[in-house]
Amino acid sequence: MPANFRTIALIGKPDAERIAETLSELCRYLLRRGFRVLVEKDCAALVAGVRPDTGSFSDIGEQCDLAIVIGGDGTLLTAARYLAQFDIPLIGVNLGRLGFLVDISPTDATARLDEMLDGRYSAEERFILRAKVWRSSGIVYQQTAINEVVVHSRSATSMIEIETSINGAFLNSQRSDGLIVSTPTGSTAYALSAGGPILAPTLKAIVLAPINPHTLSNRPVVVDYDSVIEIAFRRGKQVKVQVACDNVSIPDVEVTDRIEIRKEAKPFRILHPWNYDFFEILRAKLHWSSGYRS
Amino acid sequence: MPANFRTIALIGKPDAERIAETLSELCRYLLRRGFRVLVEKDCAALVAGVRPDTGSFSDIGEQCDLAIVIGGDGTLLTAARYLAQFDIPLIGVNLGRLGFLVDISPTDATARLDEMLDGRYSAEERFILRAKVWRSSGIVYQQTAINEVVVHSRSATSMIEIETSINGAFLNSQRSDGLIVSTPTGSTAYALSAGGPILAPTLKAIVLAPINPHTLSNRPVVVDYDSVIEIAFRRGKQVKVQVACDNVSIPDVEVTDRIEIRKEAKPFRILHPWNYDFFEILRAKLHWSSGYRS
Amino acid sequence: MPANFRTIALIGKPDAERIAETLSELCRYLLRRGFRVLVEKDCAALVAGVRPDTGSFSDIGEQCDLAIVIGGDGTLLTAARYLAQFDIPLIGVNLGRLGFLVDISPTDATARLDEMLDGRYSAEERFILRAKVWRSSGIVYQQTAINEVVVHSRSATSMIEIETSINGAFLNSQRSDGLIVSTPTGSTAYALSAGGPILAPTLKAIVLAPINPHTLSNRPVVVDYDSVIEIAFRRGKQVKVQVACDNVSIPDVEVTDRIEIRKEAKPFRILHPWNYDFFEILRAKLHWSSGYRS
Amino acid sequence: MPANFRTIALIGKPDAERIAETLSELCRYLLRRGFRVLVEKDCAALVAGVRPDTGSFSDIGEQCDLAIVIGGDGTLLTAARYLAQFDIPLIGVNLGRLGFLVDISPTDATARLDEMLDGRYSAEERFILRAKVWRSSGIVYQQTAINEVVVHSRSATSMIEIETSINGAFLNSQRSDGLIVSTPTGSTAYALSAGGPILAPTLKAIVLAPINPHTLSNRPVVVDYDSVIEIAFRRGKQVKVQVACDNVSIPDVEVTDRIEIRKEAKPFRILHPWNYDFFEILRAKLHWSSGYRS
Repeated sequence: MPANFRTIALIGKPDAERIAETLSELCRYLLRRGFRVLVEKDCAALVAGVRPDTGSFSDIGEQCDLAIVIGGDGTLLTAARYLAQFDIPLIGVNLGRLGFLVDISPTDATARLDEMLDGRYSAEERFILRAKVWRSSGIVYQQTAINEVVVHSRSATSMIEIETSINGAFLNSQRSDGLIVSTPTGSTAYALSAGGPILAPTLKAIVLAPINPHTLSNRPVVVDYDSVIEIAFRRGKQVKVQVACDNVSIPDVEVTDRIEIRKEAKPFRILHPWNYDFFEILRAKLHWSSGYRS
Repeated sequence: MPANFRTIALIGKPDAERIAETLSELCRYLLRRGFRVLVEKDCAALVAGVRPDTGSFSDIGEQCDLAIVIGGDGTLLTAARYLAQFDIPLIGVNLGRLGFLVDISPTDATARLDEMLDGRYSAEERFILRAKVWRSSGIVYQQTAINEVVVHSRSATSMIEIETSINGAFLNSQRSDGLIVSTPTGSTAYALSAGGPILAPTLKAIVLAPINPHTLSNRPVVVDYDSVIEIAFRRGKQVKVQVACDNVSIPDVEVTDRIEIRKEAKPFRILHPWNYDFFEILRAKLHWSSGYRS
Repeated sequence: MPANFRTIALIGKPDAERIAETLSELCRYLLRRGFRVLVEKDCAALVAGVRPDTGSFSDIGEQCDLAIVIGGDGTLLTAARYLAQFDIPLIGVNLGRLGFLVDISPTDATARLDEMLDGRYSAEERFILRAKVWRSSGIVYQQTAINEVVVHSRSATSMIEIETSINGAFLNSQRSDGLIVSTPTGSTAYALSAGGPILAPTLKAIVLAPINPHTLSNRPVVVDYDSVIEIAFRRGKQVKVQVACDNVSIPDVEVTDRIEIRKEAKPFRILHPWNYDFFEILRAKLHWSSGYRS
Repeated sequence: MPANFRTIALIGKPDAERIAETLSELCRYLLRRGFRVLVEKDCAALVAGVRPDTGSFSDIGEQCDLAIVIGGDGTLLTAARYLAQFDIPLIGVNLGRLGFLVDISPTDATARLDEMLDGRYSAEERFILRAKVWRSSGIVYQQTAINEVVVHSRSATSMIEIETSINGAFLNSQRSDGLIVSTPTGSTAYALSAGGPILAPTLKAIVLAPINPHTLSNRPVVVDYDSVIEIAFRRGKQVKVQVACDNVSIPDVEVTDRIEIRKEAKPFRILHPWNYDFFEILRAKLHWSSGYRS
């Protein structure tokens, strides 16, 4: 699988520890290997020793054919939400703490990248969700989510009542703190804390995990990834809702709005080292080698 | 056990269905039996056919030796928070839907009350928590809770990091949506939704139930009811916290505040019908007679 | 969708309450409508008033083009395991208690069947698992499962240590009471009790749910239904294992055996009334309309 | 707090790794300090270099005023069950892997013991449960449990139906794989895997945790430690039950038997290093310092 990368973006988490040195090192490495490098402008000032081009996410989308993201999983989520439409694959480099998505350690990043830029990588497509907020006037807001769409009560002191349907069929009406609609990528994030299952990364499925549901049998439900999920709210006094995509809040959602969630046509692409093993990361992140019972 | 009730308060949930008729009926009943009746002023206008005295919670506290609360468990929680300091026992009458605390049905309320006002009741004391918000200047706010004190992130899009100690010993530092500190009374409410156990109503214990914790082994912890629980927050950018007692928010808590939670000296007293059976209510509320597996 | 059923099997749970009358009524109904009826021999003696043909499951497989199963979900599971290889669709009639699979009530069975035998039904294919027990000598036992394959410690006093791989990749080594490998059909049965998610019935996925795992982060994992799941055991003194398919034990599994589980080529087919709604059954079985918190 | 220990028992797990060297070292250490040492006979042959007295658990009970247990938590559970009646305190030394009870590491065991044998320890009393098996003829078997009494189906392929009462009041009838009745000591063992809460070690409470219950709202219940718990079984065909105390099976329990569980009059005593911190052990064993979400 020969890879013909020419222009490579570097995207970093500006306020992370050790970001400047990792970013600078990778930038020098890429320039040395003869690539054109475009550093995302918010972290451009951190690059020392060389003078790469800089640009916005739009510039990256138009000019690059690969993006290397340095930071945590959250940094990669943000980049993937922006770049998925441009069909640019991503590589994730962490800053010392393994992530589910940023799976390359800074200590052997250049060795891994040597292989990957030569075409020895494992490419993966992961689907994305899109949430649309419908009002009588039509769609008032929409946003994509790599991990999950969260519908939540705006106050810790009151539950909301959520009515969910799948492909037009009524699923249930539940009183809870909220509902998480998650991709497989998101299944190891917030949905897992809420009691959801772990989905294999390329499983064609969406998980709906209720958040602290009033009815104890309101358990996570897994449906096909082509399902159209619709959420409405039982209106009561003082009910206020919040909708977020990957921790980014959608502003001013009203209880009379309906939320439609469905798979985005285009997935995002992530490149892993050729010997990538999701289960290995899972075991490391969840401390599966160890137990508490003697 | 002769009961010498003379002045009885009637407290209702003003906007509940069928409240007017139940309230009126009970008021007439109590007057007919020769008691002085003081109707809480927010629902006084709902009483038809008779003209009882009316008053504030303070008036009730000073003048009554029993309070009959008509509504849901939430109505009784509010009354109990106000009246516990006055040492007035409460009786709970529901409006058609059994509650854990409002355990008398309106259809046989007068028959039950006939027995109870004659002294044939089961009296129970349940402890109360008090949350104090400490700042450098001292205590800036305090509030009691019948069910639970909830510490919560103010936003659905960000976790908080909570540091908890028990009697001065560090318990843990957890990233989560929040923490519920619950009495046995509250153990069948929000704490149960968050994965907490059911505590027998008079158990001398407090449960600490994390809300969607990041670390999956962060499980509910049950400690002695004499424990002093202290909560502080790891401070990060944009972290905002919310503290609530029984769904009543404590205003303007800051991440630099410390929350101290401990048992209140005085419990609240609730009178049940003489054949009261907590487990029977539990079975009814949790649908324990039925299952899903064939 | 014209249905050309000619010979219809009747299969009942012989020791169930009211089985004789329901079986007899349905038998008379089918004969009246002109079908040939073959009653499974174990319940043939229960049929009163008419004299249908009787036969074994093999006879049914060879001669029938539809099987009506009367009993609980377990009765249908047994029939489906036998008949799937013959490609015969099943219809499930319960005996008064709604099941996930036996979704037709006896009170309106003939009305429903009138429609369905005329071709107005909703046909569904659900995949089946096959468990093979490998020893050095080769496969020593194999069995199919409609709901789940359960691997369990043979004693309540000792955990087993299970090593699982998916498509040849090591998933994890877990100490627990056992592991449930479940189809979507089984996801509302034992796997749900063990903390697994609910899978939409036609989702192309398998759930692996650990049973009381020692490591608390050992959560259910959902993988593609084409996955090959392999299970081996860490051998210790006194470890004894039990493997069961839909509650039918595979005899004499040894700790040195490996269990291979994969999707069977042929699914089983079930016919539902035309207005079948899985979510409606789910809501009814899990009491989703009701809650406990007030 | 002057400690006047004279004769000290050494009890080891005979087949554990490194047991011989740790046992020998501690034996030499104790003799050097002038104590009489009684080595439990099953591991007496492992002691090298010195010739201590040896004896059975009975001998230890009669002659010793302290027992040092070397192994895992399970080793200490066994010793505690035997020795509690003799009122002998225990000290637990692990073999390299921290336990909840065996909290002294072999690497600094003599330094810790120097302090403890001089009276600088933290003494703790933990209550014990006693299970009695009642038949028409009276009590046919009884056994004590430090951690938990487990009532379990004898087969992985069938649930049992358990009827539980607390102090004579019916709690519930549940279909499940079984029920765990646990002390606070046991709350971090099997009960935790089954979804139970963590109880502070000296909390005066018993937790009842159902094992994979059929009804999803069948959640753990915590009751006062003076409660009398009675368990009976709904009898069906083929139901077989197993009852175990701390992993030791009670032989031949029948479905017509009743199990009575209550607190034993005498607790067992365990001595910890003076700076013992249960929460510190909890954090270490449950990996509370780490998380998975990024």
